[in-house]
Amino acid sequence: MAMARGMTDSRAKRKSRRDAALTPPQPDWQRFSNPFPPLTVLDNDGLARIDDTALKILEELGLQFQNPEALDIMQAHGAEVDRESAMVRMDRGLVREMVAKAPTSFTLHARNPDRNVTIGGNWVNFAPVAGPPFVSDLDLGRRPGTFADQCNLIRLHQSLNVLHLAGAAPVEATDLPAESRHLDFYEAQITLTDRAWNARAIGSERVEDALEMVALARGRTREQLIDEPSLLTVINVNSPRIVDNELLAGLMAMTRNGQGIIVTPFTLAGAMSPVTIAGALAQQTAEAMGVIAFSQMLRPGAPVIMGGFTSNVDMKSGAPAFGTPEYVQAVIAGGQIARRWGLPYRSSNVNSSNVVDAQAAAESMMSLWASIMSHANLVNHAVGWLEGGLTASLEKSVLDAELIGSMRAWMRPLEVDDDSLAFEAIAETPPGAHFFGNAHTMARYQTAFHSPMLADLRPFETWAEDGAHTATDRANRLAKTLLQSYQAPPLEIAVRDAVSDYVARRKAQTNAH
Amino acid sequence: MAMARGMTDSRAKRKSRRDAALTPPQPDWQRFSNPFPPLTVLDNDGLARIDDTALKILEELGLQFQNPEALDIMQAHGAEVDRESAMVRMDRGLVREMVAKAPTSFTLHARNPDRNVTIGGNWVNFAPVAGPPFVSDLDLGRRPGTFADQCNLIRLHQSLNVLHLAGAAPVEATDLPAESRHLDFYEAQITLTDRAWNARAIGSERVEDALEMVALARGRTREQLIDEPSLLTVINVNSPRIVDNELLAGLMAMTRNGQGIIVTPFTLAGAMSPVTIAGALAQQTAEAMGVIAFSQMLRPGAPVIMGGFTSNVDMKSGAPAFGTPEYVQAVIAGGQIARRWGLPYRSSNVNSSNVVDAQAAAESMMSLWASIMSHANLVNHAVGWLEGGLTASLEKSVLDAELIGSMRAWMRPLEVDDDSLAFEAIAETPPGAHFFGNAHTMARYQTAFHSPMLADLRPFETWAEDGAHTATDRANRLAKTLLQSYQAPPLEIAVRDAVSDYVARRKAQTNAH
Repeated sequence: MAMARGMTDSRAKRKSRRDAALTPPQPDWQRFSNPFPPLTVLDNDGLARIDDTALKILEELGLQFQNPEALDIMQAHGAEVDRESAMVRMDRGLVREMVAKAPTSFTLHARNPDRNVTIGGNWVNFAPVAGPPFVSDLDLGRRPGTFADQCNLIRLHQSLNVLHLAGAAPVEATDLPAESRHLDFYEAQITLTDRAWNARAIGSERVEDALEMVALARGRTREQLIDEPSLLTVINVNSPRIVDNELLAGLMAMTRNGQGIIVTPFTLAGAMSPVTIAGALAQQTAEAMGVIAFSQMLRPGAPVIMGGFTSNVDMKSGAPAFGTPEYVQAVIAGGQIARRWGLPYRSSNVNSSNVVDAQAAAESMMSLWASIMSHANLVNHAVGWLEGGLTASLEKSVLDAELIGSMRAWMRPLEVDDDSLAFEAIAETPPGAHFFGNAHTMARYQTAFHSPMLADLRPFETWAEDGAHTATDRANRLAKTLLQSYQAPPLEIAVRDAVSDYVARRKAQTNAH
Repeated sequence: MAMARGMTDSRAKRKSRRDAALTPPQPDWQRFSNPFPPLTVLDNDGLARIDDTALKILEELGLQFQNPEALDIMQAHGAEVDRESAMVRMDRGLVREMVAKAPTSFTLHARNPDRNVTIGGNWVNFAPVAGPPFVSDLDLGRRPGTFADQCNLIRLHQSLNVLHLAGAAPVEATDLPAESRHLDFYEAQITLTDRAWNARAIGSERVEDALEMVALARGRTREQLIDEPSLLTVINVNSPRIVDNELLAGLMAMTRNGQGIIVTPFTLAGAMSPVTIAGALAQQTAEAMGVIAFSQMLRPGAPVIMGGFTSNVDMKSGAPAFGTPEYVQAVIAGGQIARRWGLPYRSSNVNSSNVVDAQAAAESMMSLWASIMSHANLVNHAVGWLEGGLTASLEKSVLDAELIGSMRAWMRPLEVDDDSLAFEAIAETPPGAHFFGNAHTMARYQTAFHSPMLADLRPFETWAEDGAHTATDRANRLAKTLLQSYQAPPLEIAVRDAVSDYVARRKAQTNAH
């Protein structure tokens, strides 16, 4: 400690250079458009039957909207509302008419305009893990998340170039008061990252705070924000068929202000939805379209994303299972359903493993291949999610960034031209010789191949002498290196102070309650 | 030991029942046809240009065939042969004419006819790791393979229902004399497995032994075998552009006897082929088509498989890298090239990791998705390969079987009918209730979802109290369970004795040399 405090300027510079040298290779931040046609698991008939069942659910069974104002609005638009049960039934004409008002694509604005992204089309955007109560790393194990952990994860994710968005809270700050921790989180997102982030839409007040703060961060008026969506939020349906009061309040605040909602039913097949994937998808579609239709009654053209989260439970334990074959089917089918309705689509990189091991990697690969090949426009939990979403893992964040990097790299165009066909290089290399030293190789070898940041490609003996570290061990070291070399993105001091003042003022009000 | 020896019959039965109960869930053995269209990374122009360059390599540069008899045969068929350099040049008409004689598809016969498989079309067949000098498990670590290890791996692989073939030696038996160990291996394949296996095609003698022994095992004459391919072997090209003398002798013995060869150039981009994937593919195609053309001069219609093994080297260390983005591209492009030539296609499940960790799983998933989506008809090294092929791992065998099981499960048809759409079940389940107990769930839950054998889906606390075992730990236990409950497939005693006599006789001859 004494040494660190006594470190001279030139030593600090040397350390900074050393850290930079240790920084793992990463491709530059860039938008990602999937060049392949989407995979499909449903034929037109299957797709039509799922939609038909979804519409029948909305017409005959209905959804429970636990918010009186929402009931008023839906009734005014022609839905059949039962006040006592809060059940809302909509005929298919009304559902289709309303959902058709939603945009097929929209721009999401970040405080750094270079980080604006398009949600829709063939664009695939990655956002980090959101919502776990626990955080985990190899050094301290699994423990409840704190605000310090939350900030650390935000820094780590900002350092990962494959991520397009900053998303929602990567871990709960369980050491902060529940009523004001969203303010600390918003401030952390604004100061530690320059990418777009999510409001917390439990009630309208937290959305109001997000709107005020993102307006400050982006130098826009509240009026301007309406036409420049700058926030997302996930609106989960409490499957089966309940839309919660507080979430509806949040939804209304977001949508009336032109901000994006991701409507995501939690249709675990065998628990909160039928045990069959087709049935779970029909219910998912009904729940999503019911809520999306409502959003378009509030504000026609308001940005929405159809969320797919259908997976299965483990029928032995009743526990949710993720990254399963059924999840892959549901993700791919969900993409087809979203495209049929003309909506952007959200999926996730999920797994059930309790530890960053081969199971975690395998299940994540299933989730990622499915998400990317389904043309999900937003992949939430793209890095760091562990244990069915109960834990945010630092090592998993690094591992997942590696997986996403590999996926993006193989989808680059395979160049075929005279130069890449390399007939001359082959002609110059006699049978049995090698290509290491020839001019064609020398001119290209530094950029010819994707550089992984986590894979260890060294021979066994070299690897063993160096400590025989697993990918998870190495991810731990990489996470530390990334955090050491992290630099906060530039932010005007005036903006930082205005945000900070806003938080202080609002906390004083909150504590006065 | 005394207890084990003294175990009574009823205790042995109880133990056997207990072992059966411990046996992990596996789908029954079945053939696997990919229901999806193949993925493609090349457009028609790119594909045509790679082929054109490959043909130009064969026409203008040629391949070195290090076997005088092969040179005679090729010259007799119109190839331009330089005796001094052993270089063979073929014009594109000759190459196309010869390759066109190869079958697009063939049946490979196993000693158990229920294990016969089709190599071609949309069929995907999985064969285990082949060839490593080292074996590894968590108990004993990494060490040179012995015959006991080889037999253990054959038993383990026979226990894995996802594998269609027994393949080549899963690890070298380095404790046996090099000149006769192929006999022990063949006998092990015949007695420990009922699936089709590979001859060792280094020289013609080992092929002769395989033919004699497979004839005994299958109760066929040598003449009958010619029309019933019962053996495969890999013919590697020593890239760039050398076809080895002993391998050519093996190839000739296989092909003249109607057995299947897998012609696989070893085109590591940046080392044995150009640093560009297009160039590596052009060279791979030239080398494969040159050798395949030769095989059809020997015996028109002889079964051949085009092997793709193109990957890249790690340009930092020069070490081969597997399961990389470039590997994925090469595998998918290879499938397109094979289909263009009307040939069955072989790929592999490869990775570079030194240990069964998240890197191993991630790279294997890249390899498997690419292989399966490319419609590889044969996936070699489908289970157990580690460390770039230097090690056969027991835990990796179990992990890979899990990955293949998951892949096959998601590719099952997604059923959409009244029953699976489950409108009634949804109608019967009030908002906020659950589906666990309802009739639709109860009637289906036992078979609704794929049962993984390795994934641990239990909550963190349960998993932690049970020892916090990683997937690799659990794979170790599963491998032991599978080996404990292994039962040799039925084999007539007369056949077993005839095979055993043949081996004894041949060993006596070999030792007499």
